[in-house]
Amino acid sequence: MALHSTHEVTVEWGDCDPAGIVYYPAYFRWCDQSTFRLFLKAGLTRDDMSGGQWREGPPLVAAECSFRRASQTGEKLVVDSHVSRFGNSSFTITHVFRDATGEIAAEGSETRIWARKEGDARTLKSVPIPDEVRKRLSG
Amino acid sequence: MALHSTHEVTVEWGDCDPAGIVYYPAYFRWCDQSTFRLFLKAGLTRDDMSGGQWREGPPLVAAECSFRRASQTGEKLVVDSHVSRFGNSSFTITHVFRDATGEIAAEGSETRIWARKEGDARTLKSVPIPDEVRKRLSG
Amino acid sequence: MALHSTHEVTVEWGDCDPAGIVYYPAYFRWCDQSTFRLFLKAGLTRDDMSGGQWREGPPLVAAECSFRRASQTGEKLVVDSHVSRFGNSSFTITHVFRDATGEIAAEGSETRIWARKEGDARTLKSVPIPDEVRKRLSG
Amino acid sequence: MALHSTHEVTVEWGDCDPAGIVYYPAYFRWCDQSTFRLFLKAGLTRDDMSGGQWREGPPLVAAECSFRRASQTGEKLVVDSHVSRFGNSSFTITHVFRDATGEIAAEGSETRIWARKEGDARTLKSVPIPDEVRKRLSG
Repeated sequence: MALHSTHEVTVEWGDCDPAGIVYYPAYFRWCDQSTFRLFLKAGLTRDDMSGGQWREGPPLVAAECSFRRASQTGEKLVVDSHVSRFGNSSFTITHVFRDATGEIAAEGSETRIWARKEGDARTLKSVPIPDEVRKRLSG
Repeated sequence: MALHSTHEVTVEWGDCDPAGIVYYPAYFRWCDQSTFRLFLKAGLTRDDMSGGQWREGPPLVAAECSFRRASQTGEKLVVDSHVSRFGNSSFTITHVFRDATGEIAAEGSETRIWARKEGDARTLKSVPIPDEVRKRLSG
Repeated sequence: MALHSTHEVTVEWGDCDPAGIVYYPAYFRWCDQSTFRLFLKAGLTRDDMSGGQWREGPPLVAAECSFRRASQTGEKLVVDSHVSRFGNSSFTITHVFRDATGEIAAEGSETRIWARKEGDARTLKSVPIPDEVRKRLSG
Repeated sequence: MALHSTHEVTVEWGDCDPAGIVYYPAYFRWCDQSTFRLFLKAGLTRDDMSGGQWREGPPLVAAECSFRRASQTGEKLVVDSHVSRFGNSSFTITHVFRDATGEIAAEGSETRIWARKEGDARTLKSVPIPDEVRKRLSG
């Protein structure tokens, strides 16, 4: 069992390229936005920015997406996101994009670790996923 | 007299829209990048991020750009940037974009203030432009 | 009298910069998105892409925006857009961004011309604004 | 043996997020830009846009990237790209990002198919990779 959140995105004119279809990095923006909303729905703050700087949260270690159907300006896509794997410090969020016909347009995942900043923004230390985060995202 | 810096940008596939020409917010990214380089050339750090958070620098108060010639994927544009006006706390940077033929493709400006953070990231206090900044950008 | 449309945007994590506030080119993306929606509300297609290529529509000749209050990740802004000036071939759309408190966060405008493609994507010919467009956007 | 191309990217202020490090979709923009340059170096046009519309080229079917070291504003990364696999219609481009110390900052790949447009922009038909493309990208 895992908490799911859904997020509707509109394919904007500026998301598309000269071929008239979505420029693919946009799907990764939408994945990131959808993870943000999954945390919100779970009652969690994804990134601890207290004191004006990033202190703790889930930075990416890997991301991938496969593209099944090209989408065009004005289309609406629904992204369904949930945590599909919990490790000790790392976890995977799966994102499924469906178009208005219900067909899968794209399917991606993000692998993130739970980390705290030590020193500068480049020095992150992985830590176990907090129990509260694990519990709330499990739904 | 003002210090000028020039910066070549390549119009990328992902900078263009379904009409096959630059999606206009890209020009503002290029203006911001060019202001960053103008500070670098002057031997200045544009934004003080010491201690892991933004402390002082020149946030935007206004930006504008006029577009004369549409550019396409693969074209190279040269942006020439300089401070065209110094006030007490505010200053204006003018950016001129020329294409490979030397024609002006776009012309923009950014009005920025010198500011320090007080409290959270939204609470900025304008302060006089530091003498060193004024002197170095004057060339 | 002019037709108004309103469009809510969420300030995303990826719209913000290391200072923790909106990276300003994002406001221009939102202006463009809002113009797209204004046309939709008027029952118009903004860009004629029939036959797989851009044929007719309102490219930008100038854009400007002034920034009053910095916004942060997760904030919702409402953009209110309307045509504030009609010329023969050119027209201006005014965009007002308000934050959750109702305060103006930013205020911008786009000046566009009505144009048709002649030859390649860079060769645009300005034409009078079609009566139907003028009428429907006048509300 | 495969043709390699290298492409230096500067991490821009606007490429970074409130944690002060690269917002990850930027890596995919850089992968796409690097594939574009690999084709250029091979003396090939990646996308056939003759007649003002996309007709033939290599759209994405999948992309992935793993992130090893976070990068910050002003850093320069060198992307080394080459075709690491040729199928009949599909092929994979591998992209390795190194920072100024020579360490791998990120490593990604794009899987693309060779396709022609049939009908609208969403209807793509995969075709065998042209011999000339295969030969020139093999170096």
